[in-house]
Amino acid sequence: MDLTITEKGQLKVAAPGSEAVVLHPIWLRERLPDAAVLDARTGQRLEESAETPTDLRVTAAELDGTISFSDGFATLLPSDWLTRAIVAEPASGNRVHWDGTLDPALFPAADLAAMKDDPAVLGRFLDGVETHGFGVVRGVPLDLDGGLEFAGLIGPIRRTNWGGVADVKAIPNAYDLTMTPRHLEPHSDNPYREPVPGYILLHCLTNDADGGDSTLVDGFHAAAILRRDDPEAFEALVTTDVTFRYHDETAFLENHGPLIECNAGGDVVQIRYSNRTEMIDRLPVEKLERYYEARAAFWKLIAPTSPLTLQFRLQPGELLMMDNYRLLHGRTGYTLAVGSRHMRQCYLDRDFVGSRRRLLAPA
Amino acid sequence: MDLTITEKGQLKVAAPGSEAVVLHPIWLRERLPDAAVLDARTGQRLEESAETPTDLRVTAAELDGTISFSDGFATLLPSDWLTRAIVAEPASGNRVHWDGTLDPALFPAADLAAMKDDPAVLGRFLDGVETHGFGVVRGVPLDLDGGLEFAGLIGPIRRTNWGGVADVKAIPNAYDLTMTPRHLEPHSDNPYREPVPGYILLHCLTNDADGGDSTLVDGFHAAAILRRDDPEAFEALVTTDVTFRYHDETAFLENHGPLIECNAGGDVVQIRYSNRTEMIDRLPVEKLERYYEARAAFWKLIAPTSPLTLQFRLQPGELLMMDNYRLLHGRTGYTLAVGSRHMRQCYLDRDFVGSRRRLLAPA
Repeated sequence: MDLTITEKGQLKVAAPGSEAVVLHPIWLRERLPDAAVLDARTGQRLEESAETPTDLRVTAAELDGTISFSDGFATLLPSDWLTRAIVAEPASGNRVHWDGTLDPALFPAADLAAMKDDPAVLGRFLDGVETHGFGVVRGVPLDLDGGLEFAGLIGPIRRTNWGGVADVKAIPNAYDLTMTPRHLEPHSDNPYREPVPGYILLHCLTNDADGGDSTLVDGFHAAAILRRDDPEAFEALVTTDVTFRYHDETAFLENHGPLIECNAGGDVVQIRYSNRTEMIDRLPVEKLERYYEARAAFWKLIAPTSPLTLQFRLQPGELLMMDNYRLLHGRTGYTLAVGSRHMRQCYLDRDFVGSRRRLLAPA
Repeated sequence: MDLTITEKGQLKVAAPGSEAVVLHPIWLRERLPDAAVLDARTGQRLEESAETPTDLRVTAAELDGTISFSDGFATLLPSDWLTRAIVAEPASGNRVHWDGTLDPALFPAADLAAMKDDPAVLGRFLDGVETHGFGVVRGVPLDLDGGLEFAGLIGPIRRTNWGGVADVKAIPNAYDLTMTPRHLEPHSDNPYREPVPGYILLHCLTNDADGGDSTLVDGFHAAAILRRDDPEAFEALVTTDVTFRYHDETAFLENHGPLIECNAGGDVVQIRYSNRTEMIDRLPVEKLERYYEARAAFWKLIAPTSPLTLQFRLQPGELLMMDNYRLLHGRTGYTLAVGSRHMRQCYLDRDFVGSRRRLLAPA
């Protein structure tokens, strides 16, 4: 690697076979592995870097030698650290978009017992959930709280006004359509919560009624298609804040967000779709016109008849883990003339899932 | 109110003394209180409205009579419902921005016993937390978990990798600067978590060391000033996604977001500021130049020396509730030559706080 200092005091690094990268002096000053700046144990920064003069300059730099700054700070510039630093960090990991033709043999899947025995198996499963947005756990006990044996490998479940683990089965006087045998259109869960639940664990106890297949849509794939084929519709959904609301005697939950949310870099980071609880404000009528057209265009991509819809049947003892920021899920209707359908579900925060996955990732 | 139907089949409502409002046919179709469309108990929508034709028209409308649509749907158009519908919904409630001169007599505050006795007192306190971003609970038991008596009035606390209620006091070999007697610069808590903790409950057990005052800054106020005085800096902070990271032996937490986050309507909805855990990616150097300049400008507004900083001293038996999406908090340094400083803290999700506040709001 060749080092030069630019006119502005920035560090230019030229590595053979790749474009030169210019590093900002403050970025270097903040990130170099110096024990006086970054706590060696937790990586926490020990000085208020907003107080670093913004006209800071690199004054001298030698590979595996000393790098010096105009404020008098100097530290080691390790070549292995610098090699990693000039690699661009990927924005979205290794996500794989899929559609309704995804082969069940390619579903990320693992046995609960194997994950308990070997954390590396759990790590690979969580990687699969990251790339595909879902995964199937097999060999989950058929107890009411059997799903907690898997959740416990990751972290505490999210508690909501409905408690921890909740039934998904047809009951009389259901407070939610989930608790009827009705088909469920593709949706993301509870966008009216703040925060929106991160991951859904759906644990199958019985499933031999007539109907009741699971349906999944890769919302990031649908959003990418909309962005390509109908950029105006995409833009309308990204820039319209929608209110979602749930209100009964004991809970009054409300949150806001676009159907397709992008981060500041323009990457899609969250899908919200919950027709049942979408209560858009009375926006100016021209904005609503664009919104409703765009929503209809997105709906075509995620509707049960869309080629993006994956349909399959959960078996007793299986648990479906779904990324609720990426997937739309639903089910076909069922009748209870014969058999029964009993699922249990709970939520995990993104926190614990991401932390476990990163800790188990091969170095 | 005068009703007319426009060329596009939209409903124009003219009320005396205010501008006419045009209502979109789909908005009306989705929101009118018809038991076949909206579940009377939970308000959940019972039909997939993305399938409503986007060229839907209102064909006839009579106040307190029938409104009819081009798809054959017809329902009652109640005048009281329509009156509420044409009022614009406020974007940000009744927030009051404040600075370092805020009179302690005006702090939202309430006694724990009074809130237990009378939900209306709790409701007014939560309203105060919504308008000011913080509030002080008095008369909290001096037990280690005394804060849970207040939290329990709202909902279950958030569990993190550090458990539920955690100590804030100086200890040897602290894993976090919080656990040292060092001063703490203004920051928001744990932007590396996903979701970021919504509300912080900081319960004071003892506080008679030399120093250790609490500091608060209204981040929404600081953001509004930056937006007015330095719009380029504001824009740079809103449009730069920052990585926050915490990594030790048992947790590897990471999340991303701008220092100032706006919703699709341009309202500021969240402040992230955590110098200790901010690990911005190696963005293009020109973008980093703008970012560091902007961060320094924002820092000037929230720094301990800024007139925006409110400083006061928590007393034993008091609990400070802080909106972690709005406030920056910190403390002055302290010495343990005499006395001690022992706080306990935990988090509440925004969910439960908002739900309780809305349920207790006067109708």
